[in-house]
Amino acid sequence: MNDQLVLHEDPRSGNCYKVKLTAAMAGKHLDRCEYDIMKGETRTPDFLANVNSNGRIPVLQVGHRFIPESNAASYYVAEGSHLIPTDPFDHADMLRWMFWEQYNHEPNIATLRFWMTEVGLDNLTDLQRLQMPPKRQQGNASLKLMDEHLSGREWFVGDGISLADLCLFAYTHVAGDADFDLQRYPNVSRWVERVKGEPRYMAMDS
Amino acid sequence: MNDQLVLHEDPRSGNCYKVKLTAAMAGKHLDRCEYDIMKGETRTPDFLANVNSNGRIPVLQVGHRFIPESNAASYYVAEGSHLIPTDPFDHADMLRWMFWEQYNHEPNIATLRFWMTEVGLDNLTDLQRLQMPPKRQQGNASLKLMDEHLSGREWFVGDGISLADLCLFAYTHVAGDADFDLQRYPNVSRWVERVKGEPRYMAMDS
Repeated sequence: MNDQLVLHEDPRSGNCYKVKLTAAMAGKHLDRCEYDIMKGETRTPDFLANVNSNGRIPVLQVGHRFIPESNAASYYVAEGSHLIPTDPFDHADMLRWMFWEQYNHEPNIATLRFWMTEVGLDNLTDLQRLQMPPKRQQGNASLKLMDEHLSGREWFVGDGISLADLCLFAYTHVAGDADFDLQRYPNVSRWVERVKGEPRYMAMDS
Repeated sequence: MNDQLVLHEDPRSGNCYKVKLTAAMAGKHLDRCEYDIMKGETRTPDFLANVNSNGRIPVLQVGHRFIPESNAASYYVAEGSHLIPTDPFDHADMLRWMFWEQYNHEPNIATLRFWMTEVGLDNLTDLQRLQMPPKRQQGNASLKLMDEHLSGREWFVGDGISLADLCLFAYTHVAGDADFDLQRYPNVSRWVERVKGEPRYMAMDS
């Protein structure tokens, strides 16, 4: 674990923020290498050949090797810290929320945010425009499910903060950028403030 | 780990097959509780209240507790077996492929297969019909990325079979059901046969 860690990232991406927030909370140092995804800098032949053949960021560089996928990169950074539960059930439950985030939450809330704040509504394709209402409905369903789960709980898994909270926090706390109203989800709103109140919390624009 | 394991499943689902294949390969016993998703049996008030508020299968029941999300449930079943690498980099690399599967592979290949074999092309909504060409293009891009990664490699992570192979295998080996031509991807085709040749391999319809 003594290899230098370099995060290949676009600072506007919530997926990249997951890895930086995890590093801050776990007390690990990350160097950063920035790209502008809107200029296609993660689709160049060099990036595809040497960093990630999938053309996406974040990618965590560990020495001369690379880990794509935000939640996997965050796991590597969090390994051995209090963010990874040691109990097998809690550990699998943490992964459950992380897989759920990638399947049910990110494709709706993060995609709408990207379309609305980066691409711009005027530049969407017809198919993207048609996908907006179902993505909004599914994004609200995801926030409702989180709100119900957090009823009577402080954190998503077990009794303490875990990597599941950080991975879910990244796009939830900026869901307002995509016109999601977090005030409709009071348990989620309180949990967002709880994460922000953690001693080593680092804001997205740091 | 001595709690009884019960898989809540629909036998036609590749996501459910992941958990059963993992159990077979890890030598664990699973009881099964079957549902028909086409009859809405995972959307009943009882299921939503007691098994999974997300209304989806598979769900792994561990004693009186539940783990939704196929890849998280498979991880719990595989815990402590040769399917989970102990090296931290390989472990994160395994998770990388499992997250990639849920974000890039399953929503394209599994969804097209579901629409074509279960829902039926005549019953698709207009939005689903419009999504078919991009899902086919992205599904082929996923198979191409897998094929390139497997060039000169036997398994997705490190030198041996891991849970990443099983999670990727589930919908890849039946991609032909959705008219994907695996012969275009020779490394993937050989890897499919390699998985099928493993001593404890269990077919999807077992």
